[in-house]
Amino acid sequence: MKPVVVRNIKRADSNAVGTLEAVGVSTAHEALGRFGLMKPYLRPIYAGAQIAGPAVTVLAQPGDNWMIHVAVEQCQKGDVLVVGCTADNTDGMFGELLATALRARGVKGLIIDAGCRDVKALQEMDFPVWSKAVSAKGTVKATLGAVNVPVVCAGVNVDPGDAVVADDDGVVIVPKKDCVETAQKAQKRFDDEDGKRKRLAAGELGLDMYNMREGLAKAGLRYVDNPEDV
Amino acid sequence: MKPVVVRNIKRADSNAVGTLEAVGVSTAHEALGRFGLMKPYLRPIYAGAQIAGPAVTVLAQPGDNWMIHVAVEQCQKGDVLVVGCTADNTDGMFGELLATALRARGVKGLIIDAGCRDVKALQEMDFPVWSKAVSAKGTVKATLGAVNVPVVCAGVNVDPGDAVVADDDGVVIVPKKDCVETAQKAQKRFDDEDGKRKRLAAGELGLDMYNMREGLAKAGLRYVDNPEDV
Amino acid sequence: MKPVVVRNIKRADSNAVGTLEAVGVSTAHEALGRFGLMKPYLRPIYAGAQIAGPAVTVLAQPGDNWMIHVAVEQCQKGDVLVVGCTADNTDGMFGELLATALRARGVKGLIIDAGCRDVKALQEMDFPVWSKAVSAKGTVKATLGAVNVPVVCAGVNVDPGDAVVADDDGVVIVPKKDCVETAQKAQKRFDDEDGKRKRLAAGELGLDMYNMREGLAKAGLRYVDNPEDV
Amino acid sequence: MKPVVVRNIKRADSNAVGTLEAVGVSTAHEALGRFGLMKPYLRPIYAGAQIAGPAVTVLAQPGDNWMIHVAVEQCQKGDVLVVGCTADNTDGMFGELLATALRARGVKGLIIDAGCRDVKALQEMDFPVWSKAVSAKGTVKATLGAVNVPVVCAGVNVDPGDAVVADDDGVVIVPKKDCVETAQKAQKRFDDEDGKRKRLAAGELGLDMYNMREGLAKAGLRYVDNPEDV
Amino acid sequence: MKPVVVRNIKRADSNAVGTLEAVGVSTAHEALGRFGLMKPYLRPIYAGAQIAGPAVTVLAQPGDNWMIHVAVEQCQKGDVLVVGCTADNTDGMFGELLATALRARGVKGLIIDAGCRDVKALQEMDFPVWSKAVSAKGTVKATLGAVNVPVVCAGVNVDPGDAVVADDDGVVIVPKKDCVETAQKAQKRFDDEDGKRKRLAAGELGLDMYNMREGLAKAGLRYVDNPEDV
Amino acid sequence: MKPVVVRNIKRADSNAVGTLEAVGVSTAHEALGRFGLMKPYLRPIYAGAQIAGPAVTVLAQPGDNWMIHVAVEQCQKGDVLVVGCTADNTDGMFGELLATALRARGVKGLIIDAGCRDVKALQEMDFPVWSKAVSAKGTVKATLGAVNVPVVCAGVNVDPGDAVVADDDGVVIVPKKDCVETAQKAQKRFDDEDGKRKRLAAGELGLDMYNMREGLAKAGLRYVDNPEDV
Repeated sequence: MKPVVVRNIKRADSNAVGTLEAVGVSTAHEALGRFGLMKPYLRPIYAGAQIAGPAVTVLAQPGDNWMIHVAVEQCQKGDVLVVGCTADNTDGMFGELLATALRARGVKGLIIDAGCRDVKALQEMDFPVWSKAVSAKGTVKATLGAVNVPVVCAGVNVDPGDAVVADDDGVVIVPKKDCVETAQKAQKRFDDEDGKRKRLAAGELGLDMYNMREGLAKAGLRYVDNPEDV
Repeated sequence: MKPVVVRNIKRADSNAVGTLEAVGVSTAHEALGRFGLMKPYLRPIYAGAQIAGPAVTVLAQPGDNWMIHVAVEQCQKGDVLVVGCTADNTDGMFGELLATALRARGVKGLIIDAGCRDVKALQEMDFPVWSKAVSAKGTVKATLGAVNVPVVCAGVNVDPGDAVVADDDGVVIVPKKDCVETAQKAQKRFDDEDGKRKRLAAGELGLDMYNMREGLAKAGLRYVDNPEDV
Repeated sequence: MKPVVVRNIKRADSNAVGTLEAVGVSTAHEALGRFGLMKPYLRPIYAGAQIAGPAVTVLAQPGDNWMIHVAVEQCQKGDVLVVGCTADNTDGMFGELLATALRARGVKGLIIDAGCRDVKALQEMDFPVWSKAVSAKGTVKATLGAVNVPVVCAGVNVDPGDAVVADDDGVVIVPKKDCVETAQKAQKRFDDEDGKRKRLAAGELGLDMYNMREGLAKAGLRYVDNPEDV
Repeated sequence: MKPVVVRNIKRADSNAVGTLEAVGVSTAHEALGRFGLMKPYLRPIYAGAQIAGPAVTVLAQPGDNWMIHVAVEQCQKGDVLVVGCTADNTDGMFGELLATALRARGVKGLIIDAGCRDVKALQEMDFPVWSKAVSAKGTVKATLGAVNVPVVCAGVNVDPGDAVVADDDGVVIVPKKDCVETAQKAQKRFDDEDGKRKRLAAGELGLDMYNMREGLAKAGLRYVDNPEDV
Repeated sequence: MKPVVVRNIKRADSNAVGTLEAVGVSTAHEALGRFGLMKPYLRPIYAGAQIAGPAVTVLAQPGDNWMIHVAVEQCQKGDVLVVGCTADNTDGMFGELLATALRARGVKGLIIDAGCRDVKALQEMDFPVWSKAVSAKGTVKATLGAVNVPVVCAGVNVDPGDAVVADDDGVVIVPKKDCVETAQKAQKRFDDEDGKRKRLAAGELGLDMYNMREGLAKAGLRYVDNPEDV
Repeated sequence: MKPVVVRNIKRADSNAVGTLEAVGVSTAHEALGRFGLMKPYLRPIYAGAQIAGPAVTVLAQPGDNWMIHVAVEQCQKGDVLVVGCTADNTDGMFGELLATALRARGVKGLIIDAGCRDVKALQEMDFPVWSKAVSAKGTVKATLGAVNVPVVCAGVNVDPGDAVVADDDGVVIVPKKDCVETAQKAQKRFDDEDGKRKRLAAGELGLDMYNMREGLAKAGLRYVDNPEDV
């Protein structure tokens, strides 16, 4: 790893990002082909937030948030900060003061493969964070990492500028080059779902709506009347 | 395992189920003799729901929700769907559309030993789910399982029709044949607790109310005035 | 371990405790020198509570809450009950009735390295608990432990009378003898943060406010314009 | 749960059990239709053992091995003892003395959804155990459970007399009624594998041996020469 | 926490330590009254070692082994080094070179609530380690901790000089002041077990040897002949 | 993700790979700058193996080993197969037959972020595997993934052809472009360590050998004679 900060990054298409934010994580993940989902141990510190934006990436050392301070300067309005760590860590590497600094630059939220603190204050200022843990353990500023290099965060490789989509269902990364196509597919899925929702609400069975009965019979599913008939 | 759907199941006594729903999980579990509690890794996706109902059971393959679609048709008003899995899995096997279908049939909620998604929408439609994880990872419809056969869910064997009781404290299964007796005992515990609550709120000590002092002395508990006397 | 109850304990300075409650866990932990933080697996059963008080300590056997009943009598107004366990356990060793008894004595909350139940009722009565798990599994009253002896809880040694500080960020223990000094330092940190918060909110960078640029350069951090330059 | 000991149980067919022991867990599990496998957190305390036998089942309370002592009397030559627990527990509920008692009755080994101790002595006497943990924590003999009733162990329901197959790959339960058929299928799989092993060792590709190429192409797999062609 | 090294510590009685080493962890833990056992996540890096010795304690920062280097100088022949950590950490804070230095001073082994590396070399030089993880992740030497102060390690408070007993079953801490009495009780248990072992090996049942039948009947255990009789 | 197989990959320099294999994971990881280490949950299925080789990468679906069969054809003598998974999974996706096929092509071993089975047979044929779990659960061949695309495995991004180094301490990935330089640095560290080892074995303290005393004093470390002086 080279201790470096990359100043200019190409950001994901902003219209596509807007669409992905509106449809949310589950639909975006389906549209991308079920790829790029961060591990489910990453959880929002409070419920209800739904954001999307291009990633500014940080590779941090465990228990050391020096590079997050460095990264603030590289952020633009609408960005989402993504922090990976060179080793497993649950320390509270991020809190209210850093959130205040990011908010001042228009950053939408934080994804961090480590711990977070000041969660009450963060909720009050409505700055959403998806983290691995909540911990009051503060961090040092001693060892370099990097900003805007590819990082692995919660099991997914994130390139700077990739679209980050996050809500109560988790976090998905849509690679820059796939953003426009994924947003289109996602919008289509989203629109289609409304029709399905109405039919299901009216009592239609998925078995019929999706034409599953034939496939089930072919695969060998057998209906019996009573437990004794199994 | 035979890939089979059992159509007719005997459901737990509905009056007893009503009582169990009113008293909640902790009291029902005590009344049953501290048995049948699902493992505490199963958590509600939002706080505050309290339900009970006969189980319609699903044995699903990991990452495959085909059999949940099949199970919808077997559900009646007041049922609770219980999904076990043939291997550890955290994929989001259940979401808003399936909840809409279940809601249309009067199903009260879902217990799933795997992941769940669309949790914001589920809370908005007030469809409670107890799951092992929240994950946007969707699932295929490729391999058969079974419906209304005995399944193990979060460490407990569930027979179709058994009473499922679920609230913020977890999920307990009351076997069909024990439902009436358990509901009676549970109601009695519930009524008794009110008297105890009042006495304790008035400052009476549990040591006195439960007559513990003699037992403690007999077991060898010693009171000393200061740390140096230990 | 001797099965003993110590009646007289020296409690942490009450003014200092008041200050620690006001500043919260993260600030108290920093002021103490980043020491005494309980492991982050200990979580509040509901968000928003912030308390501090001298510890009454309980050493309990797994699945046995006999000693918690014994401890109630030793509690005074403003205390926080801290329960350690002789082996890993997630049973619901604490619930509404015990909370009612503690409330009657003016106890502020509970820290327990095991499970808790009746969480809905506890939230309704606003009795905060930090626990390892939520579980309806009740407990026996069969084996002795001790009250007001040193206990290890969630990785931290707690002496009776030590100050317990707990909020959404976790739980920190401030040893009695360090309370006054820690409260002073904490108050200072707390006051200083307000100034920093305003400067950061106005767009000043932490890089400048903390004078980090020189240190970063010295450590070898390099800025490049484009990914190709790495 | 009724505190009961069932004296007479029907045991799985002994020839079938012999076959299952010879083929091992992975093959038995495939032959049964990928069902009945205990969760992989259950691990052998030492490598190399491979056993099968009818289950004598124990439902134990956490931290209490009274019922294991009771179960010894119900064991016959060739049995495997299976211990489930009414709550999560890692205490060392089993050690050298109990193993000595079981060995005297010809029991082949132990499956326990809790902890085990004296692992060095157990290996020296070659008494295999599959457990969730190794722990020196001893247990009390205070609360009843049951012997030879259905128990859930590591996620699988075990009826008394079911065939238990255990080796370095884990533990699988073959229901009594499926034992003969499963053993036959397993033997066939086992015999077939030898031919495949030889062909693969000679350099034949699975792609060809299993005729996968057409299916892969149909599913849309594309071969490209270089990364740039993706 | 004060950054301090205490030079003179009182060490546990060496004869008692010798006895505890001979009887091993499970027996020592029973003799102490089932107290002081480290959590079972602490595992030996290789099987077969059995040691005991007075503790030299280290409080280390996560990912920083500076204080272990400091502690070497404080070690005497026969000591066991015990390392606690101010936050959860799995980095490889200890390896072959430190083991070589400790070996040169006659230290018997290491207990560390973090990670260890060079495990192959450590086994070849027969230097036993009980750790939470194996990890090649090296550590910095940047932040002070303390040597020979009380530390919490894997859930147990360890005072400098306390007896550490470790084998394949885990690690137990016997407080200095309890060492002689515990060693005597442990020796007695150890001697008694031999008689029991012989009787059990000869086929005597624990039910009879421990006179359990009456207690079981009194507690309500019922024997039935067949499953239908439950 | 595109379902694709890349045929031609650039492999890491073979001399460098040979050096990295000789020095092992801990030294390689240090030489690379403490980067690229897989998470410590990845463990060897048996102790003692030490390998290095260029990565052939597989992106697999959970519970589906179709792409591993596809990957065999792309392997050359000396390669190491690296399997990442699109979701958390512990199924036994790899066993003896696949190992036989890989062995026939000269593959040195497997790194898999999922489960492995037939571990006894794998040890007998001396085919080393580093996996997240051991599980007999077999897998389907139903959904496409990709071969020789970048994959995330156990928290690290692996490009096809990168050097994989694996031993009892874990697994580290050295990017192709850094291999030669890293191997040189690693060899130097390795050679230097021998001198240090001899000095430490002779009783020299690391405190002196590394000149730590001044730094420690400067940082504020204080030596006291007795606990009372703290």
